[in-house]
Amino acid sequence: MMKHVLGARCVRCGKTYEAVPDLTNCECGGILDIEYDYEYIRRYFTRETLMGRGECSMWRYRELLPVEKDTPAPPLRVGWSPLYEEPRLAAELGIGRLWVKDDGLNPTASLKDRASSMAVAKAYEAGAEVIACSSTGNAASSLAGNAAAAGMRTYIFVPSRAPKGKVAQLLTFGATVISVMGSYEETFEISRYAIDRWGWYNRNAAINPYLSEGKKTVAYEIMEQLDWKTPDYIAISVGDGCTIAGLWKGLKDLHAMGFIDRLPRLISVQAAGCCPLNRAIAENAAWRPMEENTIADSIAVGMPRNPDKALAAIRESEGLAVNVSDEEIMAAQRILGRACGVFGEPAGVTGTAGVKKLCEEGRLPSGASVVSVVTGNGLKDVANAIRFAGEPISIQADAAELLSAFAERGIEP
Amino acid sequence: MMKHVLGARCVRCGKTYEAVPDLTNCECGGILDIEYDYEYIRRYFTRETLMGRGECSMWRYRELLPVEKDTPAPPLRVGWSPLYEEPRLAAELGIGRLWVKDDGLNPTASLKDRASSMAVAKAYEAGAEVIACSSTGNAASSLAGNAAAAGMRTYIFVPSRAPKGKVAQLLTFGATVISVMGSYEETFEISRYAIDRWGWYNRNAAINPYLSEGKKTVAYEIMEQLDWKTPDYIAISVGDGCTIAGLWKGLKDLHAMGFIDRLPRLISVQAAGCCPLNRAIAENAAWRPMEENTIADSIAVGMPRNPDKALAAIRESEGLAVNVSDEEIMAAQRILGRACGVFGEPAGVTGTAGVKKLCEEGRLPSGASVVSVVTGNGLKDVANAIRFAGEPISIQADAAELLSAFAERGIEP
Repeated sequence: MMKHVLGARCVRCGKTYEAVPDLTNCECGGILDIEYDYEYIRRYFTRETLMGRGECSMWRYRELLPVEKDTPAPPLRVGWSPLYEEPRLAAELGIGRLWVKDDGLNPTASLKDRASSMAVAKAYEAGAEVIACSSTGNAASSLAGNAAAAGMRTYIFVPSRAPKGKVAQLLTFGATVISVMGSYEETFEISRYAIDRWGWYNRNAAINPYLSEGKKTVAYEIMEQLDWKTPDYIAISVGDGCTIAGLWKGLKDLHAMGFIDRLPRLISVQAAGCCPLNRAIAENAAWRPMEENTIADSIAVGMPRNPDKALAAIRESEGLAVNVSDEEIMAAQRILGRACGVFGEPAGVTGTAGVKKLCEEGRLPSGASVVSVVTGNGLKDVANAIRFAGEPISIQADAAELLSAFAERGIEP
Repeated sequence: MMKHVLGARCVRCGKTYEAVPDLTNCECGGILDIEYDYEYIRRYFTRETLMGRGECSMWRYRELLPVEKDTPAPPLRVGWSPLYEEPRLAAELGIGRLWVKDDGLNPTASLKDRASSMAVAKAYEAGAEVIACSSTGNAASSLAGNAAAAGMRTYIFVPSRAPKGKVAQLLTFGATVISVMGSYEETFEISRYAIDRWGWYNRNAAINPYLSEGKKTVAYEIMEQLDWKTPDYIAISVGDGCTIAGLWKGLKDLHAMGFIDRLPRLISVQAAGCCPLNRAIAENAAWRPMEENTIADSIAVGMPRNPDKALAAIRESEGLAVNVSDEEIMAAQRILGRACGVFGEPAGVTGTAGVKKLCEEGRLPSGASVVSVVTGNGLKDVANAIRFAGEPISIQADAAELLSAFAERGIEP
């Protein structure tokens, strides 16, 4: 029994459930939200508790995570990624202060490791030895890596169009990879069949309500790294909605605990070619599916699987929604590289692209303080970096050629 | 003046130099080694000093680093990578205990960030705003990233055969990349000309003696993470020799400080297709150049630039030298992925391949405790992972096909 967890409540119909380890969706189809007894937790967990804690991972916050007291933290060191203040870039953008949270430095190089670490912990509790999901992206590689380290087996269903590099990473982590000749929906259905048949633990962020409880740790870290001083805005890229929902959950936890005295506004950034959630915000209407026209593959989700929590997060925070083109995304990749030494994948830098665009449109006050979360490592997608990075200066092995090449380009070393 | 640093001494002729920030080689051509006043440092720096320190980076050890008291730590968070104990893999290999240090989780995804962070710190001290090197590999990308974060410009000289992905990463970090149509030697000579002409700070690990002082922090971390209990062996891949030399320097520092009571033996692992240093050890003779026949590009160094320090490290530690084939390297990549959830690049996992080979040859005592350092992230070279990872199970979107595909392969979920 988790004494600090009250239970799970459907965000759609309000029905409540006991927080067993293998929770899935509500019978109405809605996604569940884990509820905590903050009064109880406050008795033994304070900001001061954290100060002496050496644990450099998301598990430093285990009092606010939905796990039993004796559940071991999974082996890979997930979280506690760096938060860099970027005064030069803030000045360039014309805002007060800017920080970049580089979550691409997680073990399998994306924020999704936070959800997969939680999945492994809950699988321990469920007594499961096998975890499954259907995905080709960061969710799959993070599951494969985190489960492998824990000695668990994984079955991962991918549509046959999945890029070979991503499949190779799954195979290297020892996952059993089933490539399905069919659409993503068909792949998902086969995975559902198999999960039901063999009783595997289910790692699907829109079905398993514990996963966004892992993701929420990114909010805890940001706020602790800022010494609990709330920034005006936190910007993040949005695909299926689970990540921004987790971010908001973490912030609300801290507010309920009294660790922070106000909440920031969220900046939800989607690709212009695939922005069903931001469109719903802009139109103040229900979301509708969209095509998936963007190079930012990790957020190319035309049919978001967690729209309820994501839209609630943006609205509750009085958030801003902004869409960016692929060119703006790749420009943000270069800016983060050049000004900050941070190399993010396209979807990873989309949040920063949104901040830049809001600045250009004058939609952020000049003194605003902003945190931008980079959600994945640029090494995940070198092909697009190559397309947009430009060309080196090419010379013969000759000093005179070097001098004239610099002169031609106006380079003055 | 650095009160804790005595000076620099040539490892070849013994001549001493003052430890100015822009030290290069000795006039005899030998590489310099930085010498410390351990008696002095011991007065204010102990193992207990470290216990309360929150700094999760290599700069937690700044009392043993060759920098002025007020030199700022560069912005990117380098070091303090995880050390994982791997009991399952230890049992599989038949040794007592095994730990894997995943240094691929550094900001630009390799151990080289430790040297580049030091280069940036020394460039601060030298008042330099520009750093240069000639490399296509991890040294270059780590320099470009760490310098960009510090607001410094970089000039990086690459031979024109450099892979496009690596050049793209350099360009994304804002480096001025000069692609030289010629050999590596010609590229190096042009870079030397430019560095001399414009007075740039020189980041070449075999010329700048401070760089291995950055790398030595990997030894500090391993030992602190092991609670100062020395393992029997530490295994690492070896290319130009700077990394194993840095590792050994760090261990000797700790021994001189009294932080550890004995030194481990080093395991120097090279690719069988390019092993000039291990050949010198095996033959107990001088090293001679070799061809560069291996897929482990980061250690494909036929003409090592730091042979003196590297050979001394292996010999002084009564180390073992072992060479592994490309197949053994790629097998180690899969083993680390499957058993540990660690994805290393080929050169990164070469150390582990060596441990496995020594076990198979019965050259390690069965109770031995071994640390294996993974020096770079597998995402740096996805192409080779794809070649060796195997194929997924391919099926139509049909449950019966799934069942028969599993049955055919003997998979029992």
